Amino acid sequence: MQSLDNSLEIASFTPYHIKQLPIDVSLNDASLTITWDDDHKSEFHYLWLRDNCHCSECIAQLTREQMFEICDVPLDIKPAEAYISDEHRLVITWDHQAHISHFHPGWLRSHCYSQASLDAKQWQPKIWDKARIQAELPKHQANDILQDDPSLLNWLKELRDYGLTLVEHVSTEPNSLVDVANRISFIRETNFGTIFNVQAKADANSAAYTDLRLPLHTDLPTRELQPGLQFLHCLVNDAAGGESILVDGFKIAQHMKEHYPDDFHSLSTFPMSFYNKDKHSDYRFRGTAIVTDSNHEVVEVRLANFLRGPIDVPAHQTVPLYQAYRRFIALTRDPQFQFFYRLNAGDLIVFDNRRVLHARNAFNLEKGYRHLQGCYVDRDELLSRIRVLERV
Amino acid sequence: MQSLDNSLEIASFTPYHIKQLPIDVSLNDASLTITWDDDHKSEFHYLWLRDNCHCSECIAQLTREQMFEICDVPLDIKPAEAYISDEHRLVITWDHQAHISHFHPGWLRSHCYSQASLDAKQWQPKIWDKARIQAELPKHQANDILQDDPSLLNWLKELRDYGLTLVEHVSTEPNSLVDVANRISFIRETNFGTIFNVQAKADANSAAYTDLRLPLHTDLPTRELQPGLQFLHCLVNDAAGGESILVDGFKIAQHMKEHYPDDFHSLSTFPMSFYNKDKHSDYRFRGTAIVTDSNHEVVEVRLANFLRGPIDVPAHQTVPLYQAYRRFIALTRDPQFQFFYRLNAGDLIVFDNRRVLHARNAFNLEKGYRHLQGCYVDRDELLSRIRVLERV
Repeated sequence: MQSLDNSLEIASFTPYHIKQLPIDVSLNDASLTITWDDDHKSEFHYLWLRDNCHCSECIAQLTREQMFEICDVPLDIKPAEAYISDEHRLVITWDHQAHISHFHPGWLRSHCYSQASLDAKQWQPKIWDKARIQAELPKHQANDILQDDPSLLNWLKELRDYGLTLVEHVSTEPNSLVDVANRISFIRETNFGTIFNVQAKADANSAAYTDLRLPLHTDLPTRELQPGLQFLHCLVNDAAGGESILVDGFKIAQHMKEHYPDDFHSLSTFPMSFYNKDKHSDYRFRGTAIVTDSNHEVVEVRLANFLRGPIDVPAHQTVPLYQAYRRFIALTRDPQFQFFYRLNAGDLIVFDNRRVLHARNAFNLEKGYRHLQGCYVDRDELLSRIRVLERV
Repeated sequence: MQSLDNSLEIASFTPYHIKQLPIDVSLNDASLTITWDDDHKSEFHYLWLRDNCHCSECIAQLTREQMFEICDVPLDIKPAEAYISDEHRLVITWDHQAHISHFHPGWLRSHCYSQASLDAKQWQPKIWDKARIQAELPKHQANDILQDDPSLLNWLKELRDYGLTLVEHVSTEPNSLVDVANRISFIRETNFGTIFNVQAKADANSAAYTDLRLPLHTDLPTRELQPGLQFLHCLVNDAAGGESILVDGFKIAQHMKEHYPDDFHSLSTFPMSFYNKDKHSDYRFRGTAIVTDSNHEVVEVRLANFLRGPIDVPAHQTVPLYQAYRRFIALTRDPQFQFFYRLNAGDLIVFDNRRVLHARNAFNLEKGYRHLQGCYVDRDELLSRIRVLERV
């Protein structure tokens, strides 16, 4: 449809296409209501509109950051005049200092905060059990990701939505996972370095670096911000055993919420403690095993039995928390939720470490060597990269 | 006082000194109660005690991580026998598999979760206004921090408690702040790099890189985890203006909670959006300006007017959120809370970026050059370093 020159008024790199046109504006006490040509109505508060003025006096043109501060106008600021212009813009002349604001219809509609618009913008993850992920596991080829931006975007959106993808035919040269990770952004460093080598070693400071079975867990629950994406790249896997097991923690949380709401409440309300100590570090974090956002949606799971510290909630919460925790663990052990995958040389699994629990069977090095490399990239970088690739 | 050989049973690098002795144990339905020689009583639940068994069957001796999983015993596990040994240990023989657990009295007492013990462990920040920080600003010398561990520990504890310290006589060679930061741990990388240079530049992608006034803010509220510690090291400051202004966000939040509880509620409950877009990145985060933990204590402030995106809460929350936000900003502008400091060459201010808001006056380069370098280290690394240095 119609598009306007927005170079002056839109302080954004994101293009806002015009799909609907405003046809009427009516003024209320503290807000106005726009009626659009598809009959949708948007209420915008005067404070909100004044705050979002995009003129060159309010926004620094060089940095595209706001210079104006909403504190500096009266709380009851109102339009002296408001109309829809011939170019379909909302134009307001304010009663304070006769400042004039123009609002581009594409920008305005895309920022409507009616409940229907907010609901439509809510991200919907693709939550999976074993059957679904076996049928739908997103598989991508390393070369496509490395060389082609649309393929990269396609991979990243599946990674965001499923929380698990397989990248095939990655070079088995050590550190090759960095090239793939850097297609998103920089790597998140931890006290285990930027790249970690998963192989059995004598001075292991983590169960990951032994040949032992690892129960289902998220990595680094001992950090306030658990790493977002985890990359696990298989260079060699000639040992017996060592299969990877993956479980969608969002599925477990959803199942708990439906069938055991009291346990869901305990696990999303009472914090657990996670400790990771070695000679040179002593990381601890206290947080809930299930994290929900302000819309009550599950956004994170935090769990590693071998890194739990002593529970330290008030006495009356102790048994309910143990009950809920045991329920969660029991569900993760249910085969209907467990996806098994044996990594072969050149395979790279990338998953959302704050959502997908991973485990590994014990392995036996008598039959051959096993060497994986891993690294982390945070969710912020994933989402930023998707937004930039989606700018068209 | 008395200390026991704890090499076998304490899977920890932390020493637990024995200050009180258990003198009695009585069994309840789901817990037991220890009476100590100072009359304190500790209730420990059976599940909790079984979960925290430190024997070499339950804990991997190499990694000091737990192998045992609390899911694998009955929910109603009970002691068949429990007593205080001649060595002052709590000894339990469990009714399940006749497993035996020994609990060191120093470890046990320090993990008591009675409400009194939990309250005593609650961290108490030293919250400041202008008068307090002018009188008490912690000052440390770079050489002491670089060369001496007790001095380092002293600095880090003051940094944790005040959220602001001044390090004097840092070399004015570029990148010297790295040596100081690395005394804590690695530097947190962002899309602005590991070290950022604060100087006016032509292609500024942030207001920080202009000569403009910067209003009070936290850095990178656009990231899910705002950087914890911010280091700002002054190499040259011959320009006119450019004074630093620092405000304790915890003080503002405390003041709001006392005097404007409705505004405090809005700001700690309704999320705001923060955006940072440039040609190559598009970071966004939606979170509350005041963050509280499960004890309702303020643990974080998130605020930068020039990085706010359009508010996108449901319509009925819009005006209350603006009111609360305006109140908060108005308080940060109150001189009783503002600490002014003009950085001189060799000065390094280190502050908790998730607590202390910082601002800068506009400056004028006609009279001379101004060059600061900055970097970030997260709170996890600060707290880990303090715990390791406190191991004695």
